[in-house]
Amino acid sequence: MFTGLSRLLLGSPLPTSEEAHQRLTKVKALAVFSSDALSSVAYAPEEILLALAVGGSMALGLSLPIALAITVLLAIVATSYYQTIHGYPSGGGAYIVAHDNLGVWPGLTAAAALLIDYVLVVAVSTSAGVAAIVSAFPVLFPFRVPLALLAILLIAWANLRGVRESGTLFAIPTYGFIAIFFSLILVGLVRLLNGTLGPEQAHVAQTLEGGGQALSLFLILRAFASGTTALTGVEAISNGIPAFEKPESENAGKTLIAMSILLASMFMGIVLLIQSLGIEAIEQETVLSQVGRRVFGKGPLYLTLQAATALILLLAANTSFADFPRLSAILARDRFLPRQLANLGDRLVFSNGITALAVLASILVIIFGGSTHRLIPLYAVGVFLSFTLSQVGMVRHWRRDGGPGWAWKAIINGIGAIATGIVLLVIAASKFIAGAWIVILLIPIFVWMLHIIKRHYVSVAEQLTLRGLEPAPWDGLATGRRHKVIVPVSGMHRGTLAALRFARSLSNDVTAVVVDVEPEVTTRVQDLWPKWGGDVPLVTLESPFRSTIRPLLTFLGEIDRRNPEQGLAVVVLPEFIPARWWHTLLHNQTARLIKRVLIYRRGQAGTDRVLIDVPYHLHR
Amino acid sequence: MFTGLSRLLLGSPLPTSEEAHQRLTKVKALAVFSSDALSSVAYAPEEILLALAVGGSMALGLSLPIALAITVLLAIVATSYYQTIHGYPSGGGAYIVAHDNLGVWPGLTAAAALLIDYVLVVAVSTSAGVAAIVSAFPVLFPFRVPLALLAILLIAWANLRGVRESGTLFAIPTYGFIAIFFSLILVGLVRLLNGTLGPEQAHVAQTLEGGGQALSLFLILRAFASGTTALTGVEAISNGIPAFEKPESENAGKTLIAMSILLASMFMGIVLLIQSLGIEAIEQETVLSQVGRRVFGKGPLYLTLQAATALILLLAANTSFADFPRLSAILARDRFLPRQLANLGDRLVFSNGITALAVLASILVIIFGGSTHRLIPLYAVGVFLSFTLSQVGMVRHWRRDGGPGWAWKAIINGIGAIATGIVLLVIAASKFIAGAWIVILLIPIFVWMLHIIKRHYVSVAEQLTLRGLEPAPWDGLATGRRHKVIVPVSGMHRGTLAALRFARSLSNDVTAVVVDVEPEVTTRVQDLWPKWGGDVPLVTLESPFRSTIRPLLTFLGEIDRRNPEQGLAVVVLPEFIPARWWHTLLHNQTARLIKRVLIYRRGQAGTDRVLIDVPYHLHR
Repeated sequence: MFTGLSRLLLGSPLPTSEEAHQRLTKVKALAVFSSDALSSVAYAPEEILLALAVGGSMALGLSLPIALAITVLLAIVATSYYQTIHGYPSGGGAYIVAHDNLGVWPGLTAAAALLIDYVLVVAVSTSAGVAAIVSAFPVLFPFRVPLALLAILLIAWANLRGVRESGTLFAIPTYGFIAIFFSLILVGLVRLLNGTLGPEQAHVAQTLEGGGQALSLFLILRAFASGTTALTGVEAISNGIPAFEKPESENAGKTLIAMSILLASMFMGIVLLIQSLGIEAIEQETVLSQVGRRVFGKGPLYLTLQAATALILLLAANTSFADFPRLSAILARDRFLPRQLANLGDRLVFSNGITALAVLASILVIIFGGSTHRLIPLYAVGVFLSFTLSQVGMVRHWRRDGGPGWAWKAIINGIGAIATGIVLLVIAASKFIAGAWIVILLIPIFVWMLHIIKRHYVSVAEQLTLRGLEPAPWDGLATGRRHKVIVPVSGMHRGTLAALRFARSLSNDVTAVVVDVEPEVTTRVQDLWPKWGGDVPLVTLESPFRSTIRPLLTFLGEIDRRNPEQGLAVVVLPEFIPARWWHTLLHNQTARLIKRVLIYRRGQAGTDRVLIDVPYHLHR
Repeated sequence: MFTGLSRLLLGSPLPTSEEAHQRLTKVKALAVFSSDALSSVAYAPEEILLALAVGGSMALGLSLPIALAITVLLAIVATSYYQTIHGYPSGGGAYIVAHDNLGVWPGLTAAAALLIDYVLVVAVSTSAGVAAIVSAFPVLFPFRVPLALLAILLIAWANLRGVRESGTLFAIPTYGFIAIFFSLILVGLVRLLNGTLGPEQAHVAQTLEGGGQALSLFLILRAFASGTTALTGVEAISNGIPAFEKPESENAGKTLIAMSILLASMFMGIVLLIQSLGIEAIEQETVLSQVGRRVFGKGPLYLTLQAATALILLLAANTSFADFPRLSAILARDRFLPRQLANLGDRLVFSNGITALAVLASILVIIFGGSTHRLIPLYAVGVFLSFTLSQVGMVRHWRRDGGPGWAWKAIINGIGAIATGIVLLVIAASKFIAGAWIVILLIPIFVWMLHIIKRHYVSVAEQLTLRGLEPAPWDGLATGRRHKVIVPVSGMHRGTLAALRFARSLSNDVTAVVVDVEPEVTTRVQDLWPKWGGDVPLVTLESPFRSTIRPLLTFLGEIDRRNPEQGLAVVVLPEFIPARWWHTLLHNQTARLIKRVLIYRRGQAGTDRVLIDVPYHLHR
């Protein structure tokens, strides 16, 4: 039944041989890898406004210089990653670069930061995507959380079926978003210049009134920290180099430059427009939607802008559904995460990683009420921590590499490392109370967890290894029927007989045991035994506390003590299997309980008890 | 760990020998068995008022005649049960009486009605008990549902620990409630007569204004139906006869008469007082609380009244926690309910029944928002259905019995049956839309469920019976090592060796199987096999879809087909058992999955596959 449902939802299993890689042209690669970075223009400017709002109208004037500073930071980060692309042509994610160059602990720190970051990308992007939709349709505002959860569910489902990173499919929403966004900026600027558009009167009056909080350095830094979320996703191309057409690094590098220029101009353009229109951040409608409504009017162009925004944000969430499972699989193969995360599912995707990501992101959406603004303080810490570790790793890489011009390259990545490191400190400090503390707390916990898991796997391998052992002789194993076999009997029926006969076929030393919980049942078993029990002796165990399991354990312990040289007694359990699943609810699960207790309990002297299940199937 | 927690919460297990019955004097028995009946004066008068309220002030004047009619009904029902007590001295619950005299289906109908009724007693009584508390402390009004759930949880917990129906313990709240209640009525009447108390002016003015709905017969019947909830619990004594001191029936009969007189006078007294004071039903404060406040003032006497009311209502809920598990255990022993409900727990109580009741009552409280008024329409249907079936059964009983004066006895029970039957129809019709339909729908569904469960157990017994079989010869079973044994191998480690060696000790015909999911692992197994595999051949199975289980099933099927005369191949599974529970999360559950699939799948030719678990315990 389960199999049928799973086929219907996810499609038929795919053979391993169908796993193949598609090579992307620069144009398609830009579509595939830039949705995360470009979509951040939908929320980053709004976050700057919200951070500055407490400072009053004076402070709001600072949004343009802050945006300029962020653009400079973008240039530094992009240059650094341009070098990473050439240094790691097979794909240089922060975990790999940090692990290779700085060692295990920095590598794990980068991995923890990245995993948390991927979860946040999904939560932030779907929340922001839903915000774009409810801005256009305010009646949907109360349903933000269920809408965001539905979006996560749909994306997860598509990924469980196995969406390929198809360039063509991704090109339409990405380039569509770029086109409508630049139209917005151009039309807005033209209308501002020819005077058909200006700041709202009401707004001017309003902001003049509110003096607000003093314009402190802290306020400016916090606004800057909020805006750095525009940089999230810039590293995506450096992870995906193998997907590019040859020459991979060169094409990837050019694509990174193109993406950075697009991102910088879109970001600066929208901040300029917001500033000129005097738009303020409110909860019910996104800033981008307000700009769109003012510039385009409430017509089809406005709706297209909102739809394209929602779509590229969902695409950004989708990229995490490729990245998170891939990184977890790498970590699982290195034994830092449960190995189930490295299993390719029926549809050649890492199903467990996809499911885990969807669950974690959904929890975040629920906790933070589907509000982008409340999620943002958690967001940038992980991003800039992995940026910094990756850049420091690259500095080390160039020094070790020592190729032509290594010093220059090291200096460029060094500047990147210092810049992102400072930004990381700024973010951690200015956003600490608003939520950054959660991530700052989670990352070390997570690193410790990765370490503990690895330690467990190493310990298991040591305990199970054959190294240092010599094969024991096989002769003699099959000569004597020396097993001591115990058959617990709960009543006289065909299942009991099947178990008894199987036990008897294994050994001449079989003992049946009945635990006296219900006296009528015990008497019946004792009465019928002479006829049905063959040559197997029956032992009755007292049970003053009506427990089946405790007297049985005591009895088995005694048997083992009496025959220490024979090894542990083997337990044969009759178990009748109902014809339908709901029938199991109607039967005492004693056999299952016994199995669970016996298998988890070590025998005397550290040896283990073998359990034999003899099922008897009911047919109706 | 679980055991420790359970001991702490529930106490140490009790031996079966401690199960004993305490005999109750009439005074103590009244305390034990009357809480359900007497506590209904806390809500039944209020329900009459609420039903009449829509008819305006004229209608409200009808509450006294309606109360009188209900008192007459009480007299009829009590007389009927007085006869049941003498007809069934060993305890005549509706299920037993209906089943004995009318057959299986009426018995099951009575049982279904009773079980639903017990759940409703808990939901209604805790809701009403909480209403008594929040009437005194209005700030608690918004927390009605959590308070009611907490009350259910506490009562369930006390019953899981095993509260004895201790007469002394029950006497204080029951007699306390009776005392304060009669004080209320007496003080109220005296103050009314000497003129220090009268109807509120505001009230008179208000009710004159609202003309309301026309005073129809339907309205009167609905008010009557609402008031019949005062009769719930009258049957309790007839269930508990064996708990009385000798002569049991005589003492129980006298106690029933005492209880009925108490109930009738309390009910009539409070309705009279409500009528004279012109009190109206409002949501935030119970009618009883309003009467108490007017008569006693907001002092300690008023608070005592509220506390005693809440306490006796919780005691009423508590009686269901004795009755429901007891009836479920009887039904489970008759195989109409899952047999787990007949298991005596560690503390000599039917733990599963107690838990089931608590869960079901909690669900009702949540659905109906902890409102007594919204639960009441569901309540009386089940009560009067079981009354009617029980009385009809008694008529049959006397006719069959044919003892001295049987005709008179049959006529008295016949009058009871007709009266309760008519009331049942009145309740079903007048409360149908308000909620009675739910119970009218549930009872047949429940009866059908009981029937299906019984049919399943009969079918299982037929499939498992040894009747008609003759013991097969035991000789020859242990002569040949003829089992074909298959050992699935997932890697080369000590656990694999343990399983292989055990398999080899069972049979000379052992085959190891490795499913090629991960090529590196497969290669390693193949490389190490010559050294470690002994004389056991290794077979490699292809797995194009990366599934372990499907190729294995195909292989086992082929083996079985090739050796039809040998019986099914036995599967030996190596399973390493982690040292801590959370370690299991870190390992593929392949062994478990294989076990589950193999044990639920029948082999060819209807025989069953034996599974052997060879655990290998990790020690850290």
